[in-house]
Amino acid sequence: MRDNVINLQAVLPDGDVVKTGSRARKSAAGYDLTRLIIGSEGTLGVITEVTLRLQKLPSHSVVAMCNFQTVKDAADVAIATMHSGIQVSRVELLDEVQIRAINMANGKSLPEVPTLMFEFIGTEAYALEQTLLVQKIAAEHHGSDFVFVEEPNAKEELWKIRKEALWAGFAMKPDHEAMITDVCVPLSRLAECISVSKQLLDASPLTCLVIAHAGDGNFHTIILFDPTQEEERREAERLNHFMVHTALSMEGTCTGEHGVGTGKMKYLEKE
Amino acid sequence: MRDNVINLQAVLPDGDVVKTGSRARKSAAGYDLTRLIIGSEGTLGVITEVTLRLQKLPSHSVVAMCNFQTVKDAADVAIATMHSGIQVSRVELLDEVQIRAINMANGKSLPEVPTLMFEFIGTEAYALEQTLLVQKIAAEHHGSDFVFVEEPNAKEELWKIRKEALWAGFAMKPDHEAMITDVCVPLSRLAECISVSKQLLDASPLTCLVIAHAGDGNFHTIILFDPTQEEERREAERLNHFMVHTALSMEGTCTGEHGVGTGKMKYLEKE
Repeated sequence: MRDNVINLQAVLPDGDVVKTGSRARKSAAGYDLTRLIIGSEGTLGVITEVTLRLQKLPSHSVVAMCNFQTVKDAADVAIATMHSGIQVSRVELLDEVQIRAINMANGKSLPEVPTLMFEFIGTEAYALEQTLLVQKIAAEHHGSDFVFVEEPNAKEELWKIRKEALWAGFAMKPDHEAMITDVCVPLSRLAECISVSKQLLDASPLTCLVIAHAGDGNFHTIILFDPTQEEERREAERLNHFMVHTALSMEGTCTGEHGVGTGKMKYLEKE
Repeated sequence: MRDNVINLQAVLPDGDVVKTGSRARKSAAGYDLTRLIIGSEGTLGVITEVTLRLQKLPSHSVVAMCNFQTVKDAADVAIATMHSGIQVSRVELLDEVQIRAINMANGKSLPEVPTLMFEFIGTEAYALEQTLLVQKIAAEHHGSDFVFVEEPNAKEELWKIRKEALWAGFAMKPDHEAMITDVCVPLSRLAECISVSKQLLDASPLTCLVIAHAGDGNFHTIILFDPTQEEERREAERLNHFMVHTALSMEGTCTGEHGVGTGKMKYLEKE
């Protein structure tokens, strides 16, 4: 998102109103205050206007899905795809717990294994060419059941799986709260980071779902816990803490998207 | 370039050494100090280390060139190309004076008219598909003599025209100095901004060459003047001043790439 913010207007603590830049795509004039204020979470001022860059809707897109036996294989395919230079529009990784949640919430019967979902965009020929290249990469990493669709309704139906993932996760334990955390590591470390994290998550008595923006090296974990049980909250915090430290030890960040707030302030100094 | 900087290390005025971020592709942890320090021209600290994002070399590329009767037509094609969603890797605009300089310096006989040069990258099929789409756009805006090459030596030979443009410009008047300026405007205003600027440049007694990174809305002007003639220096400054104000009036910036230094400090407040 932040790459699509051209400039913004903010009210500073002393009441001054600043506009951070022109509407030009690039500028070497003065400090990049736009990026400084984005993500500053209100500590520098209150954002009151944002100028966004518009993107052309792609003329064509393909949505694809593929199953894997291990989360490592799935992450390896995401890494290999990005490193191949293919300009994939979206690559999302859902672990087997997440797929189970989707099956339960929507009466589906998807194989409950780590799954990758892709979107390829461009001209019709190019979107299809990319799809077939990634199908080949997936096959090289034990991917199975690679399917892709081009028809609008079929694409919408397939993406629904990903779009409703969060709500399906919540629905697994309606009386529970969710601790939602995210970390991000260099892409080359993603498979290792998810694998190490999954070992701990799978061994925990809590139900934990993993969903990753795998092309960015970024993944989210939804940790479901009973808010009336203090030990469950502590267990959720222990898992969160472990994942953050694992990511930091791999030259990653304690949060890729969600921000710091009060929950992750304690990790900033180390990072 | 700045989009490819993942993090950096800088020495602050008090001697503190800071590292601005992790190696993750994205982060929501704390202020974006990387972007704040890039382009700060030494006012915040001295950059001592930079971590760059590597890009995969494209498997194929095509280089193309096309002539136009007016700089407005050429700029309109650059705008239409970018707005079409085609992911052009490079689109460079050279005005007729710049082409004359290249002919003089290299014994070439290129038509001395506004010229666009393109690079398309991707798979072989996709690079060619983009080329043909842009050929069509160029034809719709009175483009002529559209040529494209795919063979490595031929590509290198064609890009040489663009690569040696600056030196060819200097060679036009070896005893002169060059005032090199750059502005950047929203892409939709590029044709108008270059056209208005060209009217003034062409009417000036000084020799002025225009070369644009047209896909960004960014253009450079090389103004050649005799440093022993104070009035020529003043005329160069007048032209520079006019272009900056034209760009600012179009919600652009006084410098897209070159930076502020001491020469453009006076424009920062207005911008």
